Amino acid sequence: MSTYRMVVQYEGTRYKGWQRLKGEGQTIQGKIESVLSRLLQTQIEIHGSGRTDAGVHAAGQVAHFKTEVPIDGELILKEVNQYLPEDIAILSIEHVDERFHARYQAKSKTYVYRIWLAPYPPVFERSLVYQYSGETLPDVEKMEQAAKRFLGTHDFRGFSSDKTKKSTVRTLFDLTFEQTDTELKFFLTADGFLYNMARIIAGTLLDVGTGVVAESDIEPVFLSGKREGAGETAPAKGLTLLEVHY
Amino acid sequence: MSTYRMVVQYEGTRYKGWQRLKGEGQTIQGKIESVLSRLLQTQIEIHGSGRTDAGVHAAGQVAHFKTEVPIDGELILKEVNQYLPEDIAILSIEHVDERFHARYQAKSKTYVYRIWLAPYPPVFERSLVYQYSGETLPDVEKMEQAAKRFLGTHDFRGFSSDKTKKSTVRTLFDLTFEQTDTELKFFLTADGFLYNMARIIAGTLLDVGTGVVAESDIEPVFLSGKREGAGETAPAKGLTLLEVHY
Repeated sequence: MSTYRMVVQYEGTRYKGWQRLKGEGQTIQGKIESVLSRLLQTQIEIHGSGRTDAGVHAAGQVAHFKTEVPIDGELILKEVNQYLPEDIAILSIEHVDERFHARYQAKSKTYVYRIWLAPYPPVFERSLVYQYSGETLPDVEKMEQAAKRFLGTHDFRGFSSDKTKKSTVRTLFDLTFEQTDTELKFFLTADGFLYNMARIIAGTLLDVGTGVVAESDIEPVFLSGKREGAGETAPAKGLTLLEVHY
Repeated sequence: MSTYRMVVQYEGTRYKGWQRLKGEGQTIQGKIESVLSRLLQTQIEIHGSGRTDAGVHAAGQVAHFKTEVPIDGELILKEVNQYLPEDIAILSIEHVDERFHARYQAKSKTYVYRIWLAPYPPVFERSLVYQYSGETLPDVEKMEQAAKRFLGTHDFRGFSSDKTKKSTVRTLFDLTFEQTDTELKFFLTADGFLYNMARIIAGTLLDVGTGVVAESDIEPVFLSGKREGAGETAPAKGLTLLEVHY
């Protein structure tokens, strides 16, 4: 058995998320598995670093698979990209130590949430950004101030849609802002993200910027673990998984 | 009568080019005119700085129109963008001197031609770049050398699909290259571009890079004015009108 590590890029618009579904609906994992299985003529199961929600994109998702079929990495890379739809690409396939596991060994992940602020629509990036439509621009200083409340180790249950009984404690290492002429980006790095966590933090920050939520509303959500106190879940289309760190 | 100057952005993929057509097929000009005419409740005719071919994009096309209807620039900008499809945006509408003419007063234009060279497909930019599929990468040094032959004032008839009887003499002020990890970009600035000229220069340069055309094949095309000696017409999707200079 050999283990292979892949870096995967996709625009999530047309998909029901990363994770393979039994029923209807196209998924990224399902697409890649079906192409790889056909090419290698054996059933391939891939393991991603984690799921991404329906409509969420990835610039550098990482996944691995195991197979006994000998693989010419360069050749299979070319073939798999030929058969994948144009909104999914495999950037690399490399033979790695057999103990490599894309999910268990991921130390942290970085997401970017992009909010389009220009007074005209994002023609070239329309699938990748959330277009803000408020009358007045959000107050970025307020948002940066509030962002500090999320840093560090917390029980993020209230900032997620997770119904799990497992631990919902995560560590947010970094939450930085980047503002250009046309948009505002949040970069979030954590050891793990709960279901909808990145989108709820992004939505809460935006709500702070528009005055719907106050900075002082954040701490109570950490304490109570209740989703109701947090801001809106920002739309999936603005979110991209940038990188998985090992 | 007041004159208004607009900056227009579009992804040309779905359109039969800039210029309004009488028959079937959607055009950028047609779309904008129909939205503006509806909003201002009077027939509006817009004049672009020049046409762009079917499938070609623009980041900063300039156009003007005249009307007697008084316009609140900011309000109309918002409304027109609301009614336009999401692959066309008006970046600005401003009241200008009545003598302004988007075409006659344009001093030069800058286009970019983007060639995707990475060994995986351009997921996020798939509508905006031409994906190179040759076995070996083009020789960029050779291309840069050949690019110098296009600079200056020439009769570009052989490097166009123009059948006009008017002058086909143009001046190419600048032709620079930019190479990143994933792509190669040509930036072309000229006082005007003939029909298909930017795409034929781009295609010829690429053909020089792959060895199909030699640098010494360029001069004879200028002298003969015959299209046959030049390289391929590079696909429309890789071309974007960046800026019109006045």
